[in-house]
Order: sequence, then C-alpha cells, then structure tokens
Amino acid sequence: MPPEPLADFSRLCLHTITTKPWSVEEATRHYAAAGIRGMTVWRQWLAGRDPAAVGQAVREAGMDVVSLCRGGFFPAVDAAGRQAAIDDNRRAIDEAAALGAPLVVLVCGAVPEQPLAESRRQIRDGIAAVVDHAAAAGVRLAVEPLHPMYADARSAINTLAQANDLCDELASPWVGVAVDVYHLWWDPELETQIGRCGRAERLWAFHVCDWRTPTEDFLNDRGLMGEGCIDIPRIRGWVEAAGFRGAIEVEIFSHRYWAMDQHAFLDEIKRAYLRHV
Amino acid sequence: MPPEPLADFSRLCLHTITTKPWSVEEATRHYAAAGIRGMTVWRQWLAGRDPAAVGQAVREAGMDVVSLCRGGFFPAVDAAGRQAAIDDNRRAIDEAAALGAPLVVLVCGAVPEQPLAESRRQIRDGIAAVVDHAAAAGVRLAVEPLHPMYADARSAINTLAQANDLCDELASPWVGVAVDVYHLWWDPELETQIGRCGRAERLWAFHVCDWRTPTEDFLNDRGLMGEGCIDIPRIRGWVEAAGFRGAIEVEIFSHRYWAMDQHAFLDEIKRAYLRHV
Repeated sequence: MPPEPLADFSRLCLHTITTKPWSVEEATRHYAAAGIRGMTVWRQWLAGRDPAAVGQAVREAGMDVVSLCRGGFFPAVDAAGRQAAIDDNRRAIDEAAALGAPLVVLVCGAVPEQPLAESRRQIRDGIAAVVDHAAAAGVRLAVEPLHPMYADARSAINTLAQANDLCDELASPWVGVAVDVYHLWWDPELETQIGRCGRAERLWAFHVCDWRTPTEDFLNDRGLMGEGCIDIPRIRGWVEAAGFRGAIEVEIFSHRYWAMDQHAFLDEIKRAYLRHV
Repeated sequence: MPPEPLADFSRLCLHTITTKPWSVEEATRHYAAAGIRGMTVWRQWLAGRDPAAVGQAVREAGMDVVSLCRGGFFPAVDAAGRQAAIDDNRRAIDEAAALGAPLVVLVCGAVPEQPLAESRRQIRDGIAAVVDHAAAAGVRLAVEPLHPMYADARSAINTLAQANDLCDELASPWVGVAVDVYHLWWDPELETQIGRCGRAERLWAFHVCDWRTPTEDFLNDRGLMGEGCIDIPRIRGWVEAAGFRGAIEVEIFSHRYWAMDQHAFLDEIKRAYLRHV
C-alpha cells in the first residue's frame, strides 16, 4: 500500500550538493524563499565559514539543519590512514555540533587494495573509536549503506542488513542508519530490513532521488524523483510504517541538473516531491 | 584459505564476447592454437551459422562447448512480450542442443516500467514455461544473478540468495545457477550462498573477470583478472569447496581490450589466469 500523498513541503529537505552551483548562503536564501524547511549541509559548503554562524543563519531563515554530510571513510591500508580518518570524523562531529546538526551521515569507506571483510572490520573499529566523542557532542551517527557498485572505493557497507548488523554490534544509542532509495531500491530484503530498523529505533534519515535508465555516470547521473524506476512512495510507506516521521531529503548528484538554472530546478524538485515521493 | 594455484589451462574457457573482434571460426582456431579447452558461445556469434556445424568444429579443434550465452529477459510489460521471450528461450535451448552446449545461461531480465517484484514473478513463470522444453532437449538452465546496478533493465535477480530461492521454488533438476565474480563479489552472504548452491548441486558455471577502480562504463569496462579489487582465488576456493570442478570461464566486456590485438590479449588472459584466478 502506498502511503498518503505528501500535501505540503513541511518535511522537504535539500542537500546543499543537490544545488551544487549555490554557496551555503545562496542555498539558505533560495531554499527559504521557496518554502523549504530543511537543509542538509555538505562539509565542503562550510569551507572558510564558521559552522555556528551558518547554522544560525539557516535557522533564522526558518529552516532546520537536518544533518551534516558526510563523515566516514574509515578504511585505509595503514594505521596512520585509519587514525587520520578517526581524527577527521571527530572534526566532522564538532562541525555538526557547532552547526546545530543532530546527525552526521557516514559514508563508511572502502579501499580496493584490501578485502571487503577487512574494510568492514575497520569501519566497525572506526565508528567505535568516535562514538564517545559523538555522544559527548550530542550528535548522532547514521550509517548509510551505499549501492554495491560503490563497494570498491566508497563503502564496504552495501545493504541495509549489513548496516543493521553493524549497529547491533556497536550497540550504541548514538549509531543508527540512513536509508537512501538510490542505494537500496533493488534489495529484495529492503522492506524486512526497514522494519528491523524501526523496531531498533535507528532509522534516522531518509534520502530520495531516482535511478535513470540508462544511467550514464557512476556518480553524477542521479535522477529527479519520477524520472526513473524506483518506487519511492512504496519505500516511503515502509519507512513510515517503521515509525519514521522525519525530513525527506532530496539528494541528487547530476551534471544535467547542476547545469540548469537552479531556481527552475528547485521548482522541478518541488513538483516531483508532491507527485513522486 | 585460497585454493591451490591453477597450474595449467585444462579448465580455462573463453566467452566469444571476450574476443569480440573474432568470429566464431576465428575464435575456434585461435583459442585451440593457444591451448584453451573450452568455449562459451554467445548467440550473436551463431548468426547465419548452423549451430551443429559450429559445435562440431569446436570439438574437432579439441575444445568443449561449455555453454550458450544467453537466454532470459523474461519480464515484459505485456503478455505478448512475455510470450515472445518464452518463444525465444525455446529457440535458445534448441540452439544449445544443436551446438552440443549442455547449458544455457539466463540473464533473467527486468523492465524499468514495472516493480521488481512483478519482474521477479515473470522470471519465475518464464523459466517454468520453458523448463520442460529444456529437459526434453537435455539442456540445463543456469540463472545468473546480475550486479544490482543492472536491476533496472537487465536482471531483477541480483543476489545469489535470490537465485537460490528461485531454484528452490522451481524445484527442477534442470535449473541451477551461474556464479560470476563481477556480479557477486561485494555480497557479504556470498560464501554462505555458494555453499547452499553446492549442497543443492546446482552450481553449474563459474565466470571470472575483475572490477576496476574507477569503473568508467556500466557495461564495457570490466577488468582482466588481477587488475581490480576482486579476490578471485578466495571465491574460487568457495566454489571448489562447494564441489565445483568445471570450466573457469573468462567473460570480459571491455572497449579497451577489444581495441587491442586479440592474440596479445589472449596471452594476457592466460598469464592472468595462472596468477590471479
């Protein structure tokens, strides 16, 4: 059963990378003017800024900072690389706290030079090494499983079952998951694993976009909701049946959309959100 | 534990598409001259040929026909399309029988316009509709799970667990699976599901190549064994622990390799086979 259609924009959140040509100041101004209520800030958008001031500006514009994207990338072929990743994740947590973001999304990482099983152990150990820092900062960590086509170099966590297993193993109230339809739509276990997330009260973020046929670029050819094959309302139904009532985050990496007028793109996102999410 | 290294080419099989510039006659001559003992014939290579004569020529050159690639593509948005697919699969089975191929590999199909669950039902029903024809012809059918990045338009069967479930449901001694490292290497359940294949005596084909970082094309940028991140010996160990002793099939789609001298490529394949499989 698909859920009730979305009737307004009260849950709509945009990732700053979705409108990549805009700075965080432009995004703040234009999102707010368009009636959007949430923003997920990518770390690159904070370069040269005071995160606390950015967060304050977002809130003064009437929006919430939904999350900070992204921490993670824990695996490395040597101990120095792994320690550097842990240090960087602590900085990301500090930035999130300053920004007022309740959540850091973790793209867990992978390196092609070592077995996936080893990368998976390093991810577990890396999160374990920063979880106390996250708790002290009051910032939660959301493991985002990535599509298996990114298992070589971006994430060794490729299914929601794995993310759930990892959370079970870490057993911290500060570690949960982010569900992105682009990464998980194909998985025959998706409904079951979303239910498992809900029972564990760890489903903390929901990202949407679409899968185009053909997809022409491994990274930057994501589709706007409705122009691909993902049954987003069905997945939203599962997510809401699992108790999730948070922001619905539009995260689109697309050379095509970045090349267009971003105000017109924003209009298209809003239209697609009501019709296809 | 990795298995014993391969010491000779007695199990090496090439797919005709791996050396795409060569016709089936050229492939037969050049593979045999290179000491290769097995050939998997793609259907396009039979265009305008008598399959029985092609099979006889392969055997006279000292090689076995390992399989025919490929049947499948059962899902379609209307009944006429699904019937056309069933008819085409019966023709593929007839071609395999004439060729002397004991196996047809099934790339099961998907259509972006309908839910994956519906495509999965159509795949089950499509195989069920041709299995008696396969049995009468003495040709086995191997379900090849494809990487989740092909779930939109090539295969709604994306994990070995799904392929095993499908085989359990069909419960025919004529339906088994093909394991291709390119599609399955990322799956944390792979070892378990290969073991399940073995216990059911349905692991009938083993395909190898490698995953390059970065991969630049969704279809035609597969790597030669050893130039990517797949731990092929480890997976071969699992496959052999499951009882598989058949051909090791090199299936590489690559614009880069198709552009090179195919004799030199054949030498590289043989070297890579001994070192990295």
